[in-house]
Amino acid sequence: MADVLGELRVFVAEREWGQFHTPENLAKSVSIEAAELLECFQWGKPADADAVRAELADVLTYCLLLADRIGADPLAIVAEKLEVTRAKYPVELSRGRSTKHDQL
Amino acid sequence: MADVLGELRVFVAEREWGQFHTPENLAKSVSIEAAELLECFQWGKPADADAVRAELADVLTYCLLLADRIGADPLAIVAEKLEVTRAKYPVELSRGRSTKHDQL
Amino acid sequence: MADVLGELRVFVAEREWGQFHTPENLAKSVSIEAAELLECFQWGKPADADAVRAELADVLTYCLLLADRIGADPLAIVAEKLEVTRAKYPVELSRGRSTKHDQL
Amino acid sequence: MADVLGELRVFVAEREWGQFHTPENLAKSVSIEAAELLECFQWGKPADADAVRAELADVLTYCLLLADRIGADPLAIVAEKLEVTRAKYPVELSRGRSTKHDQL
Repeated sequence: MADVLGELRVFVAEREWGQFHTPENLAKSVSIEAAELLECFQWGKPADADAVRAELADVLTYCLLLADRIGADPLAIVAEKLEVTRAKYPVELSRGRSTKHDQL
Repeated sequence: MADVLGELRVFVAEREWGQFHTPENLAKSVSIEAAELLECFQWGKPADADAVRAELADVLTYCLLLADRIGADPLAIVAEKLEVTRAKYPVELSRGRSTKHDQL
Repeated sequence: MADVLGELRVFVAEREWGQFHTPENLAKSVSIEAAELLECFQWGKPADADAVRAELADVLTYCLLLADRIGADPLAIVAEKLEVTRAKYPVELSRGRSTKHDQL
Repeated sequence: MADVLGELRVFVAEREWGQFHTPENLAKSVSIEAAELLECFQWGKPADADAVRAELADVLTYCLLLADRIGADPLAIVAEKLEVTRAKYPVELSRGRSTKHDQL
């Protein structure tokens, strides 16, 4: 992770793109790339595996850039949030069900 | 990363949620969570830092689950894609500009 | 509105695209086109007016197709929802504030 | 349509919300509401019909507000764009296929 973050920082710095990377612009970018990922599945047919990997990589890239920009450790916030989600979805209530926590 | 992926796998397995986690459903989930992240910035006011971290964590979580589901290494695909993006945005053409590659 | 809906129906029928237009696929399409609209504003610079019109038209088109597919009158559901929103955002509480209803 | 646009204008004016309704903020709002519509279909189960109507109404509402804000006639831009799409997807090439125009 440290290597990838380092590479992303160099990539952005070389292009002087930090000026465009406000948290808001990065959040918009995450949404835009997420929709390109969704487009792989638009009509319900089997998705192209290479396209899915490439679009997922774009979403992840903007997520890592945003995490870096706000000073968050990407893996730490995932682990923290997992604690919260565990509490919201107790195993015995949510096993085998995709029901939202407020309707469990 | 291996630790976090391992924790996510246990979390999903305990709840028997793998059945819902088709690549398409995970791609939809990435888009849905990306929009919740965007909502932190909806009206252009300073965003709540804790909310941004929590929503970014949700996007990342679904990205990691999707990567895992399609057998992709999350950091490897980011690094691979960065190679592609480097080629599309040569430093000398893109420095200080947010112009899209096909208009450079 | 009746004219536009009629034109859309003919357009779809001529191409035999009704088979792809499940409510779910149309909902994905609305999200995908909404992100293309958002892309006009990705980096916070003045947006291209023609691009905004064209992308907004795409979002509206899928919204109309979805409304038609589920047997809803597009303008009627907007008017109905406005009643609900009026009740959630009383003028005296929400005037000049972008605060969400559950925090008013 | 004129009636609904008129009602929306009064609703916004009474709450002095025009100040928040920049084209960019409205475009973000379209994406945010589109994702709430998509959430009705997140796990691939039959969607709740009332929820779909209500969320679709929210997307449409922000689309109409954005159209109004940029001085576009919502139905006219849909009809204009349909002309463009007709040319991109000739009936004989696209009949019964969900293939994107650049791969036809």
